[in-house]
Order: sequence, then C-alpha cells, then structure tokens
Amino acid sequence: MTFSRLDTHCRKLEAMEHALSMLRVDEAVMMPAGGGDKRAEAVATLAGMYHQQATAPEIADWIADAEAEDLNAAQKTALIEFRRDYLNKTCLPVAFVERQTAANMRSEQMWRALRPAGDWAEFLPALEAVVAAMREEAALRADVLGLAPYDALMEQYDPGNRAAAVAPVFDDLKRFLKSFIPEALEHQAQRRARRPMKPMNGPFPVERQRALGLSMMGALGFDFTHGRLDVSHHPFCGGVPTDVRMTTRYETREFLSALMGTLHETGHALYEQGLPTEWSHWPVGRARGMAIHESQSLFVEQQIARSDVFWSWAMPHLAEHLGEDAVAGWDLEDMLAHVHHVEPGFIRVDADEATYPLHVILRFEIEQELVSGALRPSDIPEAWNARMVEYLGLSTLDNPRDGAMQDVHWPAGAFGYFPSYTLGAMIAAQQWAALEASHPGAREDIARGDFTAINAWRRTQIWQRASTLSTPDLLVAATGEPLSARFFEAHLRRRYLG
Amino acid sequence: MTFSRLDTHCRKLEAMEHALSMLRVDEAVMMPAGGGDKRAEAVATLAGMYHQQATAPEIADWIADAEAEDLNAAQKTALIEFRRDYLNKTCLPVAFVERQTAANMRSEQMWRALRPAGDWAEFLPALEAVVAAMREEAALRADVLGLAPYDALMEQYDPGNRAAAVAPVFDDLKRFLKSFIPEALEHQAQRRARRPMKPMNGPFPVERQRALGLSMMGALGFDFTHGRLDVSHHPFCGGVPTDVRMTTRYETREFLSALMGTLHETGHALYEQGLPTEWSHWPVGRARGMAIHESQSLFVEQQIARSDVFWSWAMPHLAEHLGEDAVAGWDLEDMLAHVHHVEPGFIRVDADEATYPLHVILRFEIEQELVSGALRPSDIPEAWNARMVEYLGLSTLDNPRDGAMQDVHWPAGAFGYFPSYTLGAMIAAQQWAALEASHPGAREDIARGDFTAINAWRRTQIWQRASTLSTPDLLVAATGEPLSARFFEAHLRRRYLG
Repeated sequence: MTFSRLDTHCRKLEAMEHALSMLRVDEAVMMPAGGGDKRAEAVATLAGMYHQQATAPEIADWIADAEAEDLNAAQKTALIEFRRDYLNKTCLPVAFVERQTAANMRSEQMWRALRPAGDWAEFLPALEAVVAAMREEAALRADVLGLAPYDALMEQYDPGNRAAAVAPVFDDLKRFLKSFIPEALEHQAQRRARRPMKPMNGPFPVERQRALGLSMMGALGFDFTHGRLDVSHHPFCGGVPTDVRMTTRYETREFLSALMGTLHETGHALYEQGLPTEWSHWPVGRARGMAIHESQSLFVEQQIARSDVFWSWAMPHLAEHLGEDAVAGWDLEDMLAHVHHVEPGFIRVDADEATYPLHVILRFEIEQELVSGALRPSDIPEAWNARMVEYLGLSTLDNPRDGAMQDVHWPAGAFGYFPSYTLGAMIAAQQWAALEASHPGAREDIARGDFTAINAWRRTQIWQRASTLSTPDLLVAATGEPLSARFFEAHLRRRYLG
Repeated sequence: MTFSRLDTHCRKLEAMEHALSMLRVDEAVMMPAGGGDKRAEAVATLAGMYHQQATAPEIADWIADAEAEDLNAAQKTALIEFRRDYLNKTCLPVAFVERQTAANMRSEQMWRALRPAGDWAEFLPALEAVVAAMREEAALRADVLGLAPYDALMEQYDPGNRAAAVAPVFDDLKRFLKSFIPEALEHQAQRRARRPMKPMNGPFPVERQRALGLSMMGALGFDFTHGRLDVSHHPFCGGVPTDVRMTTRYETREFLSALMGTLHETGHALYEQGLPTEWSHWPVGRARGMAIHESQSLFVEQQIARSDVFWSWAMPHLAEHLGEDAVAGWDLEDMLAHVHHVEPGFIRVDADEATYPLHVILRFEIEQELVSGALRPSDIPEAWNARMVEYLGLSTLDNPRDGAMQDVHWPAGAFGYFPSYTLGAMIAAQQWAALEASHPGAREDIARGDFTAINAWRRTQIWQRASTLSTPDLLVAATGEPLSARFFEAHLRRRYLG
C-alpha cells in the first residue's frame, strides 16, 4: 500500500525534524560559543538532507497513488495536507532557492552589522536584492498555487488566509485604533492623576522569578513531564510536542517582562502539547500555522494573563514566590497599572496590546506594495514615516534604526509573515468570546486559578484539530464565524475604557 | 576526484553523528521523562539512516578508486582508516545484526529487571542467546578481518590490540597485584594506626562543589568556549570535539567522588578538545579507541589528580571553594588517606586503582573462554567466584547481583571491551614515565598547578595523532616501547608502599 510508504517516509522526516529542533534549542540554551561553527555546519547539512528527502520527486507519485487507495477518514485528511505541504515545499526551482538563500543570508548579515548605526543607505542594495528575489518567489508560488502573489507568500505561514479577506478587517481595526488609542491614553492619564503608578520594589532574584514562572506555567496546564523552562537570550517555544522547550530571560529590576514572556510562551507550549499525538509524524498533525499559534500564545497572555481576574488570583502568588515585600502595599489597581500600561512607541516588539496592531498593519500595507511593485525598497523609509506619523504620531524619518530597520523579517526575506501577529490577537479575542458564550463562568474560573474548562474548550476546538482545516476554516469551526475585528475591539474597550 | 566524494560523504556522516551525540547528551542532561519514547524513536531512526549511509556498498568502490589516486600524505593516512572503519562496519550481514540486536536488547532489558534481585537462573537463557550470537559475530568478524575470534571483537574498541600481546602483560600485572595488595593493605593499616582517617566535615553544598570542579577543570586546561559541565545520573563525556559535554553528579555528604569523577571526565574531554580539528569529519580524525581514551582520563585522574603534589597544590583551593571549615585542620596526609584508600570489594566501578585491574583481568579471562567455547554461560558464576576468591579473597557464590550480574557489558552483548579499562591505566602510567623522562620537572609543575608542559607533551604525542596509528603503534610512538606492566606497577609501589 502506497499510503504506508508515505507513513514510513513521514517517520523519517519526523526524526530529522526532531534532531534539527533539539539542536536549535541546545544552541540557544546550552551551547558554548566555540561550538557554533561546527553546529552551523551540522544543522545546514542536516537541513539540506531533510529538504532533499522531503521534496524527493517520487513522493508526488506516492501521493497520487495513495489518493486512489481505499483510505480511512484520518488517512484521507492526512493526504490532503501531505499534498498541500509537498506542493508548497517543491514549488520553487532548486537553482532559484540557492540564489535566494544567498541573497537573504547576505542581507541578514549586513542588517546585523548596519542596524546598530541605522545605516539605511549602506543596507539598501542588499535589501533591494532580497525584494527582487522575493517578487520572483511570489510569482513562482502564485503560478503553482493559483493564487495572487502576496497570498502565495502568506500561504506558507497561514494556509487559506487571503489579503482580500484580511485587509478589510485590518482596515476596520485601524480605524478603530486611531480613535481608541488617544481615548485610552486620556483615560490612563486620568487614572494616573488619581493614583500614581508605583515603581517596582526590586531587585527580584532570578531564582524567585523562575519559581513564580514555573508555578504559573503549572497552574495554566503546562505538562512538565513533556517539557521544561530554560533561559535564552531571545525567548522562544521550541522542541517537539512530546518535549516542549520554553525559554525566557530575566531582569532583576522588575519581574513582569519575564513573567509575561513566560506566560506568552506557555500559550504556544499548551498548543504543542495538546496536538493529537498519534498524528505527530504527519503534516496534518502539526500546529495549523503562525496566526493560530500566535492566537494560542496571545489567548494566554492577553485574554487570560492581562485580565483583572487573573491578577486577583495571581497577586497572593507574587508574595509567595517573590517574597512578602515584593509588591508590599499594592492592590489590584496598582498591579493592573503596570499590566495595562499603554504607550505609543517606535518598536513593535516593545509595544503594548493596544498599539501593537498598528505596527503590524503598517508593515502589511507596505509589504503588499513591495510585492506588487507599487513601492520600491528605496521608498520604504518615507512610506514608513508617513504611516508612523499618521497611526501613532511618531516620526522615524531621521531614525531608520528604530524604523524600517528594526525587524529581522524583511532583511531575512520573510514577507507575508507580519499579519500573523495581529491576526493572532484578533483570533484570540474571538476565541475568548466563543468560549465565554459556551462557558459563562470562564472569568470566575480564572479568578480561582482553575483553567481546566478553558483548556478543555481549547483542546477540542483548536489543539486536537491540528492542521485538518485551513486557518479561516479552523476559526469558523471554533467560533462559528469568520474573522472579525469586533471581538478584539470590544476586548480593548472593556479593558482600557472600562 | 573520488577522494573528494568520500570527503563530502564524511561531512554528511559527521553532521548525523553530531546530531546523535547531542541528542544523547540532551537526553541525559535535559530531557523530561515524557520525551523519552519519541526521542528513542527519533534516535533509532537517525541511527538507522546513519548506518545505511555509512555502509552503502558504493563506498567500497570509492575507497578503491581513491586508493589509485594521487593523494597527499594526510589523505593517504585518512584513506587507510576509511578502509579499516568501513570494513569493521560492514563485516556483519544485516540479517544477522538485526537478530543479534534483538537478542541483546531483550537480554539487557531482562538484566535491568533481574539484577536487583540477583536472579541469575531467570536471566541465564537471555545471556545464553547473547553469547551464542556473540560467538557467531566473532567468527564472522574473524573471517573478514583475518584475526582470531577474540581479537576480532577487541578490534572494534582498540584497533591493533591482540590477546597474544595483552595476556602476558595482564599475567604479569596479576602476579604483581596478588602480592602487592596484601602489602599495601598492611601498609595502610600501619598508617591508620598512627593516624586515624578523619571523616569528611559535610554537608558540602552542590553549588560549591560545582565551583570547585569548574576551577580544577579550568586549571587542567579544559576549554570552556568549547565545552561545559552539567549533571546527569551516570557521569559521561559526550558531545563533539568543538563542544565537549561533560557531566558529573554530586552527593552532599562528601565531595571527593564528584571531584574525582569530574577530573576523570576532564581527561576524556582534553583528548577530544585536543584532536586535530581539520580532520574532524574523517574517521582518522577521531580518538584512537577505548584504551587510549581511558588512558587519557586515567592520566588525569590517577597520574595527576591522585598524586601528592596535586593535593599540595589543590588543598588551598578546597578551602577557597568549599569554605574554610570544609577540611579544617587537615594536612596533606589526611587528604591523601581518602584519595589513596585501598579496599578489595565486589564491585568493579567502586574499586580503587590498585584492586580495579583484578576485576578486569577476571572478566578478560572469562570472556576469552566464552568466545572459545571452553566455558558455557551457565558456568560463569562458578568461574567468577573461583577467581574472586583467588584474586581478592571475596566469594560471590551466593551473590550473583554483585558478581557476574553487576555490569551491563555482557548483558548488552559487549565482549572484548573490558580490557580497555586496565590497558588505559597501564598506558597512562607508561605515558607518565615517558613524559617525566623528557620533562623531569613534571611533578614540580603539578605542585604549582601548571599543566602547560604536561598538556603540550600529550597534545603532540597522543591527541594530535588521532587515529593515524593503531593502539599499540601509538603507544610505541608516544613512549618509545610496547605495552609493559612495569610502569603501572612502579606507580603503585611508589604511591602505596612509599
């Protein structure tokens, strides 16, 4: 039977993915600096072997043969995702991929060197090469997949997402935020006038912060027999579903950034740990894509862990783990002043949940124009500045380092990825609304630190569905309706104007 | 050119070895229990892929073609080891390996289950299957390699070692030890009568023991930019030469076992870190074999770290890292009483350097008879007991758990490996004598904590030679003469009767 040949093939690929994933974790968490060159060589060689085996021409025949076989429902679903995955992996000619990889690597290296000084002029030629290759890539993908060029790029990250569906929702959200943010800031100023923000009473020793993070992870449902928490320079959630490796990093002067980072990654980790184990070697058994993954991390971070009920439960635990005088004399309102602080800024990754989407929408708009050719790379700084001024009232014209040079995505050739972040935030809010509709006691659960029913809903509606549905279909299946900005907008209104 | 095809092939194999090695380290140091099943599956799949690629039939042609090419000296040396390595990897038919692996795995699992109760009778049938397969293996290897069956097994671990050369040296050592050990015990009793052994003033916190170990590793020349020290249940030295992962384990009631374990593994680590980096992907670039590897760990542990001069340097560091009252009131003699304690016992891995070789010689003698068929597995307990009584004055007849069931080697199918441990001890002593002949100040160096000249000698004589010579040839190249027991005997006499 051909299907079982595919199945065996998938187990081989899974073993190589396992190795690559763990080598990346080890590199970030454990590896001494001198191990880097050989590690890079080993990972590149293994990744090349993986790509060669994953894209072998005979697999196309296996898929076609298997489609004619008498398969059960799970196998049929698996086969659809096999085909989609294989098509996406093989739609670019090898010679093109090699040329593009060289351009992207050179550009990323230049970006690392030139970003600190914000030397846009020196960087521009490298980015122009990346954008030229990306436009070629988009055309090639579009041709094979029968999609518009930008949609063909997004398809890698969120299967089924289309700009025609996303753009109106982003427009709705943008309109909302342009009036909401000034209101929220005004509201915040009034509250601060009544009650000034209390500074954090550090230092908070790393070991205590770690104990706090571990205890919160456990309460939220993280399974420590199938994962662990370590430290790395850039926090991530990696490993494999049976062994999820999360990292965070600690600053001793305050504890919120490490804790909220840990809770964010816990959201990713719960998704991975909740995937159907029997499909782990099939493409259909993987997490659906970047937007859904981000919805799971933001569900925990924004919907649960920035809520007032969460902190009414969590405050006693702060004292328990950080010490009695950690937030001595603080009440819930003092804590929420830190958790709900809104402040427009230049840097996307430092942005709060209210201003963050505008950073994303700005990039979404610009990259669509780069793909279509309406905008040239040399025009990016001006386009960026115009939107930053319009959306957040900040000019980046003299500051490319904190403008178009702040993210690694474009220098590394990743276009069509940015929308996932804000789609994730909106999907999380939409999921919360659907959950609360079916389980009206969800907020009371959080106030008691009981996440059982909440996780049970997510397990059924999201995690166990893995990649059986496209991104938009999964959202409809879980929440009963297509993507809408109104849930996220209502969420912001409740939290910041309530 | 065919040689460059072999070279590329080796880089692929090296990447897979890198992954397998790091996955094993991660498993022992980091992995949560629930990750075990998937990890085992991934490692087995990768190991299978590795074996398939390392033994591909076309490689035989590549080697033959390359041998006819115009190669430089390094390439020629590399090719000799390619051929040896390939021959050793391919001399067993696949069907046999599968059958043997099944027998060995079943036996090892049964051993794990039955060893605690010492249930020899229940375990015997599984071991009989292992021994039968091992005798088949020895015959197959002997046939291909043109060696005697036991030599063909040893060849896997120490290329070039032959029982005909090893047995007389072991006999010499055995004769020596049978009279030496009672003398050393008598000597020890007299010293203890003059000055009783002081108990260790624990507890010694793990973090302090770790700091002590790291400081000693650094002094001995361990390069922390290319390696690190962690904790695992069974201490080991793993990873890759550019990223050597050592482990130890700590008990808080005393600090010597963790420290001596750390120093032992440091010896292995220095060898790995000292291998020629430009050959790292070639078989000839690897460490020579088990006996030479053990000689490097025992050189550090026995020749350096159990010497009086080492402790005259190390004692102040104990106070510095473990605290002033760690060994308060101890002088060098008090410390050496612990470091040089001799006591015949049942368990090989717990044995001191004086009694350890008799454990090994006993096994060497028995396994030769198992290979030849002179001894049946059912006769092992009696043969074991007779030798334990003769060599160490201890009976194991009623105690198979601490007799023939104590080691994993035979249950797992490893025969011909045990000699390496004591060969390592003898080679270390022989190396020390050669080093001291060329550098008479070596002991003064140790007393000052200066290991530069000692490591420089080892780098040139051992580490940089990697696998360019057979085990006996490497010993002659480094020390000027073939294996002899007299250096190790003189070492023991000096240390325990001096």
